Amino acid sequence: MKWLRKKKSHIPLTEWNTSIQGGSLLKKVMNQPEQIVKEMLEGMILAHPDRLRGIKESGVLLRTDAPVEGKVGLVSGGGSGHEPAHGGFVGKGMLDAAVAGEVFTSPTPDRILEAIKAVDSGKGVLCIVKNYTGDVLNFEMAVELAAAEGIEVDSVVVNDDVAVEDSTHTTGRRGIAGTLFVHKVAGAKAESGATLPEVKETARKAIGRIRSMGVALTPCTPPEAGKPSFTLEEDEIEIGIGIHGEPGVKRTKLLPASRLVRTLFDRIREDLPFKAGDRVAVMVNGMGSTPLMELNVVHKELMACLREKEMKMVEAWVGEYMTSLDMAGFSLTLFQLDEELEALLAQPADSVTIRRGGN
Amino acid sequence: MKWLRKKKSHIPLTEWNTSIQGGSLLKKVMNQPEQIVKEMLEGMILAHPDRLRGIKESGVLLRTDAPVEGKVGLVSGGGSGHEPAHGGFVGKGMLDAAVAGEVFTSPTPDRILEAIKAVDSGKGVLCIVKNYTGDVLNFEMAVELAAAEGIEVDSVVVNDDVAVEDSTHTTGRRGIAGTLFVHKVAGAKAESGATLPEVKETARKAIGRIRSMGVALTPCTPPEAGKPSFTLEEDEIEIGIGIHGEPGVKRTKLLPASRLVRTLFDRIREDLPFKAGDRVAVMVNGMGSTPLMELNVVHKELMACLREKEMKMVEAWVGEYMTSLDMAGFSLTLFQLDEELEALLAQPADSVTIRRGGN
Repeated sequence: MKWLRKKKSHIPLTEWNTSIQGGSLLKKVMNQPEQIVKEMLEGMILAHPDRLRGIKESGVLLRTDAPVEGKVGLVSGGGSGHEPAHGGFVGKGMLDAAVAGEVFTSPTPDRILEAIKAVDSGKGVLCIVKNYTGDVLNFEMAVELAAAEGIEVDSVVVNDDVAVEDSTHTTGRRGIAGTLFVHKVAGAKAESGATLPEVKETARKAIGRIRSMGVALTPCTPPEAGKPSFTLEEDEIEIGIGIHGEPGVKRTKLLPASRLVRTLFDRIREDLPFKAGDRVAVMVNGMGSTPLMELNVVHKELMACLREKEMKMVEAWVGEYMTSLDMAGFSLTLFQLDEELEALLAQPADSVTIRRGGN
Repeated sequence: MKWLRKKKSHIPLTEWNTSIQGGSLLKKVMNQPEQIVKEMLEGMILAHPDRLRGIKESGVLLRTDAPVEGKVGLVSGGGSGHEPAHGGFVGKGMLDAAVAGEVFTSPTPDRILEAIKAVDSGKGVLCIVKNYTGDVLNFEMAVELAAAEGIEVDSVVVNDDVAVEDSTHTTGRRGIAGTLFVHKVAGAKAESGATLPEVKETARKAIGRIRSMGVALTPCTPPEAGKPSFTLEEDEIEIGIGIHGEPGVKRTKLLPASRLVRTLFDRIREDLPFKAGDRVAVMVNGMGSTPLMELNVVHKELMACLREKEMKMVEAWVGEYMTSLDMAGFSLTLFQLDEELEALLAQPADSVTIRRGGN
C-alpha cells in the first residue's frame, strides 16, 4: 500500500513491545510503558491549554489561573490509571491541582508539596486523599512539609467503598469513585470564599454521606507489568473489587444487570443506611472498558432500586470518572444530600470532565 | 455471604446468558440482549430528565423543549452501539432529536419521521446522516414522507472516513466520528436563527472540510450476535476500520503510538489536503474500550504531527464520542476551520456529552 510508507523510526519495530514484555504482547496504544504517564499528561495539557498547565517533570496539573486569590486551594491525586481522575477534575469550581504518580503508584511527597505550594494563595490548602496506604502516607508527609514552610494546610481522607474493611493496599475502607463528589462540593465551597476549616468541614460532611461499591468483569493490565492484575474465568465476575484490581468480597457467576445492580445497591444502602425520602446524587462509574450503553442500562436498574426504596435522585453522573485502566465493570455511588450539599453540587464547574454552567 | 442474599428473580439464572448465546458466554452488563437498546435509552432519560425526553417505543430522544420556536430543527441518528452518539449530542446548540435503531441497525423511516415531526416548529428540519446505505435510504424515505406532510425538510450526508472509497455497508466514503463536528456547527447555526437553506449550507461546508480515519486493536461483540464482529491476532491491528467492524484497508502488526498516529494523520492530511497555516479542530475518539490514558498519548502524538506541518489546533475533543460497542482502538478527525466555522464551534452547547458555556 502506497500510503502506508515505511518511515524512519527510532524504535526498532521488530523488537518493540514484545521485547519490553519479555515476549508477551501488550495491546495498548503507547510508545514505551515507562513514558506513558508523562506522555498522557502532556496530551492532556495540549488538549486543554485554556484549562490546564503543568509543573515540569512533576506530574502536577494545575488550573491555569492558580493560585486563585482569596480562595482555599484544593489538591488531590494518586496513582495514574484512573483517568479522567484526577486531572479531569481540575478547574474552576473543582480542584486547583491534581498530582499524578506512576500507574497505580502514589505520587511522592515532594511532588504533592509542589502542588500545595503552587495553589496556595495565602488562604490555605486542603488535600483530598483516597484511602490507600501509600497515598495517605505521602500526602501526610507533604502536608507536614508544607506546614513547616508556613502554609496553612489540611487534609481529608475519602473512604467510600463499602466492600471490605481492610484490603491489600489499605487499612480501613478504600477511597474510590465517590471521591469525585467530594471534589465537586469542596470545590464549590472553596469557590464561595469559605475558610479552610469551613471547606474541610463540608468535605468531611460529604465523605460521611457517600458510599460506593464496584464490580469487575475483567481484570486490567498495567502497562509496565504487562500482564493482567488478576484472573477471572470466562463466566466469572468479582464483586467488591478495588480500583487497582485488589480482590473483592465475592467471586460469582455473571449476573443479569438487574441482579447485579440490586446486589451492590442493597449493600451500599444498608451501610449508611440510606432511607426513604433521602435526596441523593448517584454515580454510575465505568471502570475503563465498559461501554456507555451498558452503564445506561445499569443506571436504569439503579433508578428502579431507588424508586422501590422511595429515594429521590436529584443528580446523576453516568460515565467514566474513576477508571482502572482497561478493566471492564462499574461502580455505583450514592451520596445522601442535605440542603447545603445539594446546592454546592449544583454550582457551576469548569473542569475538563465536569462542566456545568451557572443558573 | 450473608449480604449476597438469594433474591427471587424472573430470570432463571442457570439458563441466563449461556442459553441466549447457545452456550457461549457474553460478558456484558445487561439483562436480555434484545432489550439492551430500549433499556439504555430509558437509562439516559432517567439520568438527564432536564435535557432529554423520549417518544415512547420509538427510539427517539428529544430536547425537553422541542420543538424550539423560530429555530430549524436538527435530527440525526443511526444504529445503536455508538454511544454517546447520537443521544449524547441532543441539547441546546446541538441536535433537537436523535433516533436510535437497534445495535448497528438503521432506525426505520417511521421512527425518523416521528423525530422530524416532533422537532418541526414550522421553520424546517435538517437531517444529518452518516453515509451508510441503510441510514441513507431510511432517512431519505423519512424526508419524503415528512415533505408529503408539508414539512420543510432536507438532509446532508457525512462521509468523513478517508480509509476506503466503498465498503461493506456503504457506497462511497463512510460517515464516522467527524459527524459530531457537523452536529456542533449546524447546531450553533440553527440556534442563531438561520433558515433551513443556511443551516444546510453551513453543514455542507463543514462536511467538505472534515476528514477522519480509525484503527481497531480488537473487534467488538454485538449483544445479539454474541460473537466478535471479526478476528484479530494477538499482535495485529486493523487500520481504516469502520464503526461496525467493517474491514479496514490494512492489517498490520501493532505499532508504537507515534507511528500509528502518523500513519493515520498522513492519510487524513493528504486527502483534503490540509496545509500549513490551517486552523483546525481535532478529535481523538475512543472506540469504546481504549482508556483515556491512551487517547491522551495519541493526542500528544497528533499535536507533534500538526506542529511539524505548521497547522494550528484551536479546539480538541479527546474522549469517547462515536464508539463501536466494546472495540479497542481510536479514530482521528481533522476539521479545517474558516472564520464562520471556528466561531460556530465556540458557541455554547448544552448536551449531555458536549457542554460549553457562553462567553
